[in-house]
Formats: sequence, C-alpha cells, structure tokens
Amino acid sequence: MAPRIAFYFDFGSPNAYLAYRVMPAIEGRLGTTFDLEPALLGGIFKATGNQSPAVTLAGVPAKAAYERRETDRFVVRHNLTQYRFNPAFPINTLHMMRGAVLARKLGVFEPYVEAVYAGMWEEALNMGELDVFHGVLDAAGLPTREFAEHVGDSDVKAALIASTEEAVGRGVFGSPTFFVGEEMFFGKDRLRDVEEEYLRQARAAA
Amino acid sequence: MAPRIAFYFDFGSPNAYLAYRVMPAIEGRLGTTFDLEPALLGGIFKATGNQSPAVTLAGVPAKAAYERRETDRFVVRHNLTQYRFNPAFPINTLHMMRGAVLARKLGVFEPYVEAVYAGMWEEALNMGELDVFHGVLDAAGLPTREFAEHVGDSDVKAALIASTEEAVGRGVFGSPTFFVGEEMFFGKDRLRDVEEEYLRQARAAA
Repeated sequence: MAPRIAFYFDFGSPNAYLAYRVMPAIEGRLGTTFDLEPALLGGIFKATGNQSPAVTLAGVPAKAAYERRETDRFVVRHNLTQYRFNPAFPINTLHMMRGAVLARKLGVFEPYVEAVYAGMWEEALNMGELDVFHGVLDAAGLPTREFAEHVGDSDVKAALIASTEEAVGRGVFGSPTFFVGEEMFFGKDRLRDVEEEYLRQARAAA
Repeated sequence: MAPRIAFYFDFGSPNAYLAYRVMPAIEGRLGTTFDLEPALLGGIFKATGNQSPAVTLAGVPAKAAYERRETDRFVVRHNLTQYRFNPAFPINTLHMMRGAVLARKLGVFEPYVEAVYAGMWEEALNMGELDVFHGVLDAAGLPTREFAEHVGDSDVKAALIASTEEAVGRGVFGSPTFFVGEEMFFGKDRLRDVEEEYLRQARAAA
C-alpha cells in the first residue's frame, strides 16, 4: 500500500499557490498524486491561535525581507515564471473555498482549482470581488451560474467547515500543510521532505 | 576564490546547537570551514523587533508541537544522540557570549565553543549560573580564572556589541543564521540550501 499524500490548501496563501505549481513535477517523480483538501485558513488561524504571516511579519522588517528572498529563490529554483504577488492581498477567500467544495460535487474540481489559483496568483486579480471571480469561471468554461446559485448552500458550507475542522484536528495551523500518511509537513520548503518521506514509507510498506 | 560561509550563533539557541553539530559533516563534504561569529540573540531581537520562538509559539500549541516534531526529525536524520533539551531554558547567555569573544583573544575559541555548547545542550546544565559555567570550563581544561577576571572587560563587551550590530546590519533576525558570501539563510533546516549555494558560488568563481 503506497502512502497517501494530502495537501490542505486555501487560495489566499501565496505559498500554497507556489507549492501547488511544484506538485506536478513531484507527482511525476513519485508516480502518485496529491489529494487536495480545502481548509479555510481564517478558520484554522482562529482555532489554533495562529496568525497570518502578513500580521506576524509586519513588525519584523528584516524577517519579512528574508521571507521575500526565500520566495524569490523558490520561484527561480522551480522556474515559476507566471507568479505575481496579488496587490489586493489579503483577500477574503470564503466564496472561493466554498466553491472548491461545490466544484467537487459538480465534477469540475481540477479545472476550478487551476482557474482560481491562476486568477489569484498569475493574473493577480481581485478575486474577492464576486464579478471578478465569476469572470474567471466564465473564461475557464466553468458553470458560473451553478457556482453563483449554490456556493452558499448549507451542505456546501457545512462541508467546508468539516474539512477545516478535520485539518485542525490533524494539527494543521497554517498554509501550505502536507501529510504523508500521518506525518505532517508545514511550508512550501518542506516539499523535499515530503518527497523523501513518501519514498521512505513506500519502501517500508513494500 | 571559494566563498566564505559564516555562522552567526548564540549558545542559548537549541537550533544553533543542532546546526553546529551538523557542520563538521558539511565541512568535510565541501572541504571548507564555517566561520563562527558570536552575535547576542537578545540584542538581535531588540534591534529587529523579533521575538524568541519560546514567546511566539506560546499561544499556538499546534505550531509548537510541529516545531518539536521537526526537531526530532532533525535529530534522527543527523543522528544527534547527545542532544538534550535544557530544562533551565531560556538561559541568559551574556557571559557565555562575551566568553566566546574572550576565548578568541586567548586562542581557545574552538574548545571553548565545544565545551559551552556541550554544557548547554548535551549535559543540559544551568549555565546561566556562574559556578556551573566555570565548572564546565574547568572540566574542559580551559583557563577559568582568565574568563572569570576578563569576561567583563570593556574591549570584550564592545567586541560582542560590534559583532551583534554587524549581524543586524547584514539582515540577521534570529538564530541560527548562515551566510554564503552575501546570501543569507535562516534556520537549521536551510543547511542543505547552504551547501548547495556554496557549490553554486564555488562553480561560478572557478
């Protein structure tokens, strides 16, 4: 039995976007896929007492500068030429995250995630505005009217709450977070460790 | 010209100790040595607005638990069987850090650093107590009386302030911090990046 790799994500996290773009290469090397799990970062912060890096770094300019340098290094290392920081950051992602739950129900999860991440961190649009969000769905050929009508359905809301609570219950406190089996890894810079841990568990199970 | 690798350290940081113990293997692979630069972490925090992980993690138990897990992984990966968390943590390291400056003057820098790190994070002694500190120096065959008499000399104090200010001027905000040439890396988990960056710069200079 090969281990499962889970990726808990929120569209509002640039580091989650950067990790998302590196996943295909890892999936190709490992011959497996990441399971994408929507988890609302605002809910995670509230439940764990954690805060956004935008808040914690605000008073420590030297650390903020270093984190920007690390992002630049990651972008260069993985040749992520499409990345643009979103000038509207931080953006309320509640409708986008509920949309991810709905997209799974509608059978369009993968193209939805692709379109929303590209809108957020490549086109750098203000996706917090509903008309902008809907324009991105239109352009991707997604059923915008379904999203507009059902993103607030109670089962959709409940499913996002449940997946966020599941994340918190597993120890998630920020974004991006990965699990290889039960082993948790936090941060885009842990992807090498994720890959090594997968291979270790796969060998152990063989 | 091979690049210079600098390691800014404070004895009070368990992560700096863990990095220190991994350095010999890296030095062996690269055929170079790390330059150890004392920099008072309390001074760095004050100058940069940063805080100790002990403070920032106190309100976020899930993150604290993850950091402990990452430390365990690092210890296992590098087989650091001697490591013990110091129950007296956090310990005021001012006399130990001034001692590092003095040790360089006295020509005993390397055995001094070795003895103090071992006392702090292997024997897990309360090195904040002067008699305990002096006992460790005695046991290592270091000139304890010289340390007792001269650790507070004005040139020693001034040199530690200067090296701490130099660190802050270069962008240091926490411990451990490394430089490969002018490229800064923060955290024990960056040692792989330090090694790769050294090789990259060495190739570029060849």
